[in-house]
Amino acid sequence: MSSFPCNLAIALLHYPVYNKHREVVTTALTNLDLHDIARASRTFGLEHFYIVTPSADQRTLADKIAGHWQDGWGAAYNTDRKEALSIVRVCDTLKNAKADFQSNFSKPVKTVITGAAERSDSITFLELRQALADPDQPVILLLGTGWGLTEPCFEAADHILESIQGTGSYNHLSVRSAAAIMLDRLRGTR
Amino acid sequence: MSSFPCNLAIALLHYPVYNKHREVVTTALTNLDLHDIARASRTFGLEHFYIVTPSADQRTLADKIAGHWQDGWGAAYNTDRKEALSIVRVCDTLKNAKADFQSNFSKPVKTVITGAAERSDSITFLELRQALADPDQPVILLLGTGWGLTEPCFEAADHILESIQGTGSYNHLSVRSAAAIMLDRLRGTR
Repeated sequence: MSSFPCNLAIALLHYPVYNKHREVVTTALTNLDLHDIARASRTFGLEHFYIVTPSADQRTLADKIAGHWQDGWGAAYNTDRKEALSIVRVCDTLKNAKADFQSNFSKPVKTVITGAAERSDSITFLELRQALADPDQPVILLLGTGWGLTEPCFEAADHILESIQGTGSYNHLSVRSAAAIMLDRLRGTR
Repeated sequence: MSSFPCNLAIALLHYPVYNKHREVVTTALTNLDLHDIARASRTFGLEHFYIVTPSADQRTLADKIAGHWQDGWGAAYNTDRKEALSIVRVCDTLKNAKADFQSNFSKPVKTVITGAAERSDSITFLELRQALADPDQPVILLLGTGWGLTEPCFEAADHILESIQGTGSYNHLSVRSAAAIMLDRLRGTR
């Protein structure tokens, strides 16, 4: 580990998000979100991946999944998986995730929210990549589950990241795929 | 659809791949591979995503999953998912997948194989992106499951694509994450 830990973290939020009917809900944890995003985060050098849910049961489940690969038989079966899941932190609120990440840095943590829709007031991937060139500027990338983070989340975030656009009007990446592409654009070798 | 269909396709191969002990096996279908890679492929404009497995039972399962979202109640529940899964084709061999894709083009289909390890004789993402600029040059990107495609597959492919490297020695993306990054690098807006 360098003198600063990696200044980019991901928070996967299970509340407050929309469901299909645009109602505000808490989504259930998806096992492969945890695995895929942990593996991609670790591959691109991140040291903190926050699973955020207000549900105590769901936090217990997340701890159990991550723990299986760290202390259970999974740790011996697949050491690569152990290494990826070691960066997972389970939190009840984004505020607590921010506080945990903040403890590593002197500059205030900035939140950068993501979503599938294009928005006029967004920053580009290149701009965020350049901001991350300052190793003491911590950034948490906020990823939503379900049908996406609610409007008040977009208003509360420090920045909105431009959405990933494909080649046509269809634009329905899984949060796992979106996270992988974002990490590659922000930290991949160019 | 333009006069040519999209000249890039993906084939997800469940045989012949290595298991953890470097034995050659047929892997089981993973439901989320099918969903995530179909959604990412459709987002980046692909019209053919081949699920390849020699197991008749597994092909029936793949057809059933894709069919659920196309004809079952899933089709009405989630029309976006229906659109993504409409590009899925289930095949017993890569040869048959190639023949199906070939029927849309006059130039011979090139196979481009992918893997996590760095290899000296690989082409770069940029080179492949430039080759795809010819709309009549069809390319199938070969993705392995399990612990990756076997050595004879690498020898038989027309080209080897450079591997996605992260920021350190850890490099264990899921095939779903790798596919998303590859599609973005090959067809994403720059």
